[in-house]
Order: sequence, then structure tokens, then C-alpha cells
Amino acid sequence: MNVYTERLAAFRAEMKAAGVAAAIVPQADPHLGEYLASHWQVRRWLSGFSGSAGDLVVTADKAALWTDSRYFLQAAQQLEGTGIELMKDGLAETPTIAQWLVSQLHKHDIVGLDGMLFTNPQLKKLNDVLFRHDIALNTDFDVIDRLWKDRPALPDGKIFVHDEKYAGESARSKIVKVMAEAHEAGAEAVLVTALDEIAWLLNIRCNDVKHTPVATSYLYLRDGEGILFIDPAKLTDQTVAYLASQGVTTRGYDEIKTFLAAGNDSEIVLVDPNTISVGLFDIVRTRFMPTAQTTASRLKSVKNATQIAGVHKAMVRDGAALVRAFMELEDRLEKGVETTELDVADLLHKYRSRGENYFDESFGTIAGYGPHGAIVHYEADEKSKSTLRREGLLLVDSGAQYLDGTTDITRTICLGTPTADERRDFTLVMKGHIALATSVFPEGTRGAQLNVLAEQYLWKHGLTYLHGTGHGVGFFLSVHEGPHSIRLNWVDSPMLPGSITSDEPGLYREGVHGIRCENLVLCQERMTTEFGKFLGFEVLTLFPFDRALFDTSIMSAEEIEWVNNYHATVRERLMPALETPAEKAWLEEHTKAL
Amino acid sequence: MNVYTERLAAFRAEMKAAGVAAAIVPQADPHLGEYLASHWQVRRWLSGFSGSAGDLVVTADKAALWTDSRYFLQAAQQLEGTGIELMKDGLAETPTIAQWLVSQLHKHDIVGLDGMLFTNPQLKKLNDVLFRHDIALNTDFDVIDRLWKDRPALPDGKIFVHDEKYAGESARSKIVKVMAEAHEAGAEAVLVTALDEIAWLLNIRCNDVKHTPVATSYLYLRDGEGILFIDPAKLTDQTVAYLASQGVTTRGYDEIKTFLAAGNDSEIVLVDPNTISVGLFDIVRTRFMPTAQTTASRLKSVKNATQIAGVHKAMVRDGAALVRAFMELEDRLEKGVETTELDVADLLHKYRSRGENYFDESFGTIAGYGPHGAIVHYEADEKSKSTLRREGLLLVDSGAQYLDGTTDITRTICLGTPTADERRDFTLVMKGHIALATSVFPEGTRGAQLNVLAEQYLWKHGLTYLHGTGHGVGFFLSVHEGPHSIRLNWVDSPMLPGSITSDEPGLYREGVHGIRCENLVLCQERMTTEFGKFLGFEVLTLFPFDRALFDTSIMSAEEIEWVNNYHATVRERLMPALETPAEKAWLEEHTKAL
Repeated sequence: MNVYTERLAAFRAEMKAAGVAAAIVPQADPHLGEYLASHWQVRRWLSGFSGSAGDLVVTADKAALWTDSRYFLQAAQQLEGTGIELMKDGLAETPTIAQWLVSQLHKHDIVGLDGMLFTNPQLKKLNDVLFRHDIALNTDFDVIDRLWKDRPALPDGKIFVHDEKYAGESARSKIVKVMAEAHEAGAEAVLVTALDEIAWLLNIRCNDVKHTPVATSYLYLRDGEGILFIDPAKLTDQTVAYLASQGVTTRGYDEIKTFLAAGNDSEIVLVDPNTISVGLFDIVRTRFMPTAQTTASRLKSVKNATQIAGVHKAMVRDGAALVRAFMELEDRLEKGVETTELDVADLLHKYRSRGENYFDESFGTIAGYGPHGAIVHYEADEKSKSTLRREGLLLVDSGAQYLDGTTDITRTICLGTPTADERRDFTLVMKGHIALATSVFPEGTRGAQLNVLAEQYLWKHGLTYLHGTGHGVGFFLSVHEGPHSIRLNWVDSPMLPGSITSDEPGLYREGVHGIRCENLVLCQERMTTEFGKFLGFEVLTLFPFDRALFDTSIMSAEEIEWVNNYHATVRERLMPALETPAEKAWLEEHTKAL
Repeated sequence: MNVYTERLAAFRAEMKAAGVAAAIVPQADPHLGEYLASHWQVRRWLSGFSGSAGDLVVTADKAALWTDSRYFLQAAQQLEGTGIELMKDGLAETPTIAQWLVSQLHKHDIVGLDGMLFTNPQLKKLNDVLFRHDIALNTDFDVIDRLWKDRPALPDGKIFVHDEKYAGESARSKIVKVMAEAHEAGAEAVLVTALDEIAWLLNIRCNDVKHTPVATSYLYLRDGEGILFIDPAKLTDQTVAYLASQGVTTRGYDEIKTFLAAGNDSEIVLVDPNTISVGLFDIVRTRFMPTAQTTASRLKSVKNATQIAGVHKAMVRDGAALVRAFMELEDRLEKGVETTELDVADLLHKYRSRGENYFDESFGTIAGYGPHGAIVHYEADEKSKSTLRREGLLLVDSGAQYLDGTTDITRTICLGTPTADERRDFTLVMKGHIALATSVFPEGTRGAQLNVLAEQYLWKHGLTYLHGTGHGVGFFLSVHEGPHSIRLNWVDSPMLPGSITSDEPGLYREGVHGIRCENLVLCQERMTTEFGKFLGFEVLTLFPFDRALFDTSIMSAEEIEWVNNYHATVRERLMPALETPAEKAWLEEHTKAL
């Protein structure tokens, strides 16, 4: 028995007592976002798996965890000895949770889960299968408080105002826009459940969730009134006064249920079916109007001029910090100072945190050396960390939250003399990176229509990567945001001018190395012709790629020119932010033409 | 008043008598396919617009016709003087039919239509909007028989057997496969409503529909039994005996409704919601199980070895016929013989029809000279035809139905010395054509994920085309078939090895010229690596592109090599099929390296 088998045993005892034959423990909180406060890290506590995505299912004698390809290797390692089977989501041979439950359970069995942690579409999909096999759901199965003795409390940090000099628009103005679209859709009110949408709408931030500065709350909007449901401990006189100045009053976080239950039946409420929990949805199901895409998520994705100017400045700060961190890294390796993957993360943090407007990292740094680079969302710890040698590839994916912008950059560098294979792999990834960065496309284009540009050269060699190519990026908010996305799968939201997206193809050879090349790009109008309006990208991120890894023999003249031009821009923009001659010399050397 | 305003007036009188405020006249028959027998060309009869897609809506004082970009120019010309407004489908500013109806009608108005000509999803979408405005539907509004005095009868041509030596698989074997998947889905029976699926399943053909050799019928399958609902006039003792040998009996075409109505309530019937009319669907709504994609459409799209060998042979025949037709065309122009667009179609027909296994054209030849080339589905007639001169671009899109395969090819040739603009436009289209033809992609890839490959170079210049890039192609069946499709829009059917697809990017400059470059390509397995199975294309079509139109200064070395290799293959494969020294010399000259 280890700690996880013990916890599972106690969990199964609760299942038995409640009469549920199986229970689903998702990676979710009542706001159904990607990143959770520690209070909601129940799946991690119960299984030991620490990835940011993955659902656990437990029966009387089995347990299985579904996670996606980013976490296949990490989950396999972390689940060792727990008795939990790894289910590789997205592979053709992997059953869905519903299919697996049907194979494990019997007629009239009950599946338990906490309805506050699932959306209605999620449960509908599950129930469509279970129902046909006479298996029922109990959506009030919530026993973790009893089992998890030292469960972290709900976060009680104070919210703070994100100054309009950074945000570029007042909360009041944003609320007016959201209400105008709600009225157009035929609704009288809007219930905002996604934490980053609330933070964006009200220009408030908090530190409830690691690396994502949101505040646990719900927001209800109707004409001339906003009500923020939030723990009073998180408020100060100052923030209450600020909210009032924007037309927003506050109530307790838990009051949302009674408030909704007491609501006027003729008040149609627009909700986001993908971030409202079934627990809330069930209260006033008849009054809710689902929206395919929230106004807030769309408007949030389109950055205004103030935000774009802020991001440009944050990128200079971020790039300069990276120059210093990578310089020190090279220096340590040259001098033979023992350096691990964890030290890489520390170096990045050291230099970034000295910068103006720095608030936090935007996610836990991924520094994967050699085979660790092939674990897509690898996060080194004291047990797993590798010591760097003067050979092989180091993949570093990191970012920061600045008051004036969020950064996210991946560079893959060679610590010795690159092999032909390393150069070929890297260059195939870069060719895709460049093809996407330089693409021009008509207004209305969806990310799935562009994704092949980043994958085409890998595919010709029978290579691919299993993650998306580009995610939206928030502004001093979640490093992953929608509604658009550049990936194989269809996401029905167009690329909009003003939106920020990552461009990050990769290649992962298990047991060998991982490569990912990531810049953030800004979608912009490019031209208008008789055929309509065309968009393109401006690269925002400012830091050189490893020149030694380019195999120019498989690059076109245009691709080589793009790299040289990009490096010239990096040099021009970062140079004024550097201080010492050594820093300047380093940048000069690393941005030379190929 | 012209003939169309007169017909519309009579139609409005019928509307008034039936109490409908608006009526929708779709381009459709009860099998909801793309191509219609002349009996069902009601929209054309009423509006004068002859395009293969487009729905007419009539109110007491207005009429409007929705069609897609292929027909914008043609529809504008043909609707002149009819009082019918052209609605450009797919443009952001164009209202949907439902939106327009709402803007024209009042509460409690009724919209009339014939339920046999609409699918359930179509009507649901319409009704979702109308319902909210208290506008009702009358799905039994069918008055055309009374108005259209010389309406063509339902087709009564005899069906014939498509020999297994061409089809490569018996009807019985195909039926077994379809029933196996139906049982797996939990159904006991299958109702096949799409005419090309019935023809494919039973290895029968007919000439009910111009250019598409299908037979008007329904097919009902259940274990050990097939029932073909078909006009007895279309049968002979021989075909009845053949059908019986495959386990299929026949009943009258009109008996389908009573048969379904009398059916056993416990017999679950798999149907295709996109080709079953509401008229049939409503009869036994509770017993029907909709399928996202029919087994027949998927299996039909994957050609077997016999079919592929047949297509290869048909392509040689088709290419040789094109050599002779284009030779004669060049000859006429050189000699100053007056030659119109209609003559081009005649030349193609003359040489193709002499070939072995020739049955029909696979669609009406599109020969568009100069500005006519910019009308995507232009079909010349005596009134519109242009006379060719020794300058400018001629776009020729044509194809044939052979017993051993269906062809579809577009070539754009210059009749004089090409201008720099003509060469640039042509080469940008060809670069996309080549990028798609040479693409490699993982198993499971959808067409929308590949489409940008064909458009990327145009987009960089602010150019685009508004039609799809690739449609599936039947085998001695419809020249347009699914379920896969290479286009901007998401179609959730993967590219499958064995399927045939067109590769036809284009560029249309209104009033100037049109360019389209089309080959048919066969999807094939390309390689299997640790990252999975990868697919690619083999080019099937055999005919040179116009060498004079390539601007090699904007082509990569790989693109030039592709053209040269393709032309070498064309030369090698077609040469043995040519007879005279002049033909051989022509091919030699037209396939020289760039």
C-alpha cells in the first residue's frame, strides 16, 4: 500500500456507503476552467498524477485515468504503483469513459460524481451512453472534504484592480458591450461563469490560481446592474468602491444558487454551456439561453491598442531576461558548474522577476533535457531532474505574467555540437513554424484551416506531433484562452485581428529528444482586395532561435531570409534593453545571419 | 411580362388559393441528390436560372433566389427581367432564407413547400427561426403539376446491370457489408434513399439523370432481403432475374410510403438524414435511426483494385481523346476556322465518344473563353457563346462516364502569347495544385485540414476562389460524391485510401479571365512510422498543362520538377494510345520539360 492506494481505498469505502458502483473525479472546479486553485486539485490528490488535464474513474476493483498525449509519459510514471490504469485519450483503441463504464458495470448500477464539476453537455454525452445500458447518474456524490483532511481552503486572497492604463478599457464599457449582444440574442441577463472572463470584464485580478491571476467568483449582469458573487474576505473597501464605480455590487460566493433560484422566471439568462456547471444549470434550466460563444471570450481575445502596446513592451523585458538567463546557463556549462533542469527554471525566474511590471510566471517552466524534452508537459522535480551535459537538446518552455502582458515562449537549444538528426528534426519543425507565421488568409478563417501549414514538412517525413499548434493567449490573464485555436480539430471561431496566438509546432521522439519552437503572434489585417479582407500575423516574441540547429540545405531562400529578418528585429528591439557589453555581444552573436 | 413573370404570377395565384404567404421551391428531388431528372427541374422552370444549385423563394410581391458563388454571374444574367432578386449565398451580408422570410412575413403567416423535397435537418433549421416569429410551415404545398403543362414525366428508361468485371464486387457482397454495419449500430434494416448509393450497391445503372447514370428508386434492406422500389416500366425480365440472383425483389416506386407505414414498429431502420425526405421521414419517425454517414457512401468512395485498374485505363482513353480534341482545336485556330465555345465541347465529345466503354459525358462541358472563364460553372449556349481568338485564356472543364471509370479534368490554355498577368495567375493556381497533389498526411485527416495547401499562394497575393478544392468522384456514377471533400468548411469524413478526389484550385477575375487546374487523384497509403500511418495521392488524370503559362521564376525547383515528372508520365502513358505521327509529335511537344 502507498499513499494513493490508501486514499483510493478510503474513497471506495465512501462509494460503497453512498451506493455508487463507480465514481468520476474530473480535473475541474465549479468554473470549468483549465487551471485550478489547489482546493480543487482532487484528482491529483487521489491519483498522484499532477498533469493539468485528466479524469479519474474508480470502480470497486479498478481505477483508470484518461489523459491526452501531452501527458502520456508523465502519467505512466506518476501512476506507477497506484494500481490506476492509464487510458490514452485520443488514440483509436482507447475506450471513452462512458464505454469503459459500460464494460465494467451492470444494469441498475449508479455512477457518482459532483455536478458542480461537470457541464451539461459533458453529462449529456455521458448519459446518452449510460442510459441505454440502464446505468444511472448520482450528481451529488461529493465526499472529498471528509477524506482529504488537510485539503486547502478555498482561496481568500484579496482581489486588486487591473489599472485601465494597462487594460485600455473600463469595466463599465465592456459590460455595456456584453449586454448589447445579450439583448440582441434575446436575453435580459448574462451569467458569467468563466473566471478569466470575469477578471477581464471587471478589470480585476487575484492570485487564487497559480500563474493565472483570476478571482473565484460568479458575475451576473443585467441592465444597469452587475452582481459579483465572491467571498467577502477577498474584498477591501477600496475594491468594493471600485466595483461600485463600475456599477457592480457584491454578494457572497455561495449566494449564487439561492440568487438564481429566486430569480424572475421571465428574465432570460445567457450562459456559456461550456463553463456553467450542471449544479447551477439545473437550478433554472428553463430560463437559461445557451450561447455558442460568449461575447466576453470573443472581445477578450481581441486586444486593444493599449494592450498591444503593452505586450510589445513586455516582450522586450521578457526577451532581455531570457538573454541574461541563457547567458548564465551557457556560462555555467562552460565552467562545468553542475546545472539541472530545475536550475534552468530558477535562472529564468531570477531574471524575469527583476523586470518592471512582473507579477508571476504564466505557467510552471518546462525545461526538458534530452529524453525529458519528449515529455510534452514535463515539469522537473527533485526526483526526476536531469543534469545538463554539453551535448543534446534542451527544450525550454516558459512565460511570465506582467501587468502589461502575458508571455509564452519555447526555445530548443543544443548544448553541444548538434548531430545531423537533431538539425534535420529542428529544421523541419522551424519550416512549419515559419509557414504559419508568414501565412496570409481571408477574414473568417478558422485555425483548423491553417494547422497543416505547421505540420506539412513533418508529415512528408512521416512525423507529427499530437498537440495543437496555436492557443490564444490572455492579457495578464490565462496563458491559454479561446475562443480561437490553431489545431487539427475544428473549433468554430475565426482568427480575429487583434488576437494573440502561439505558433508552436514540435516533434517528440520518445527516449531521444523533444523539439518545440514557439513564438506568440498577433493577428492583423494585411490587405483588402476585390476578393475581400486578408489577415496575417506579426511576431511578438523577441528571442533568437538556436542558429546552430538550422540545416539550411533543406530550407528555401525565403525561409532563411525569414530567420535572418526575425533575428535582425530581435537584435534591434532587445539591444536597447541590454546593459553590459557581454550581453550585447551575446545578442549580436546569436542573431547573426544564417 | 415574360415567360417567367407569367409563371410566377400563376404560382402566386396557387399560393393565394392555398393560403400560403410564401413558398420555397428548392433545387431538389425526393432523393435529395445534386443532379435531377428533368421532371424535377421545377426551380429552373419557374425562374429561368439553370444552375445546379439554388433555391427560389416567392412571396405575394417579391421573389428571391439563393445560389452559391459558382453561379453568381450566371444567375445575375439569367434572372434579368424576371423580377427575381439574386441572393449571394455565403457572403456575410446575405440573409439566410429563414432570415429573409422573417423580414418579409407577418405573425401567423404560413410558408408552403413540398416535404418530399426537403430533409428533416433542413426543415428543422428553417423552423427553428420561423417558429420564434409565429410563422408556420405547410409541407404539403405541391402545385407544380397543375401549372407546368408540359412537365416531363418521371423517367422510364430501363435499368441495366453494371458488370462485375467493372464493379469488382457483387451486389450481394456489398449488401452483406452494409447490413453488418447496420446491425452493429443496433438497426435491423436500412433504407437507402440516395440514388448513387442504390446504383452502387446493386451494380445497376440507368439514364434517368443527365450525365449521372442512376435509376429513380428506393432500396430497403433487411436480413436476407432487399426490396427495390422502382417503376416496373424500368425493369426487364433480365434485370428482374439479375436482382433476384442478388436477393433483391422489386415493388412499385410509389409503394414505398405504404410499405413504410405498414412496417413493424420493432424494426429499427437506419436512414441517412441528409437524403431522406421529410415526407418519408414523417411516416415512421419513431423507428428511424439516423446515421452521421451511410456505410454505402463510405464503401462506395473506396475503390477496389478492379475499379482502380479500370480508372487507370479510362484515363488513358480520356487523355488520348483530349490530345485529339485539343490538336483539332489548335489546328482550326491556326487555319482561321471560326470556332466557338460550343465547338470546343463538340470536339471533346466527338473524340471521347469514339473511345471504348464510353457511355456519356460526366457533366455538361464548361468551355469558358476570356471573361466567360470567370463564370465558374459557365455553360455556353447559342446566345452566349464566344468565338475564340488567338489570345487570352480558355478554360475547359469536362469529363466522361466510361463503364470502367468516371473522368473530370480542367485545363486552362492560352490561345496566344500569354501576358505576364496570365502567367502569374496561372502559376499561383498551379503552385497550390501541386502542393495538394504532393501532400502527405496522417490517417484520419479531413479535407478542411488540407485545403489551405491549395490556396496558400493565392492568399499571399490577396486572391482566393470561392468553391471547394476537391470533391469525391464516383465510379461510373456521380462525378461529385462524398462523403469526403477538400474545402474550407469542415466535413467530418476522413480522406480514405482508395478514394478518388479532384484537385482543382482556381482563380476568377470577373470580366477578365478564369483559371482552374484540375486533375483527379487517388488517395493511397504512403508510409507507416512510429507516428502512425500516412497517406498521400497518386495523380490519375493524364493530360499536359499548358507549358506556356508557367512562370518558372516564382516556382521552386521541386515544383518545376513535379511538372516535368508529371508530363513525363503523361507522355509515357498516353503515347501508346496515340496513332498518327502528328498526335505523337503533339504530345512530345506539349510534355517537354519546362
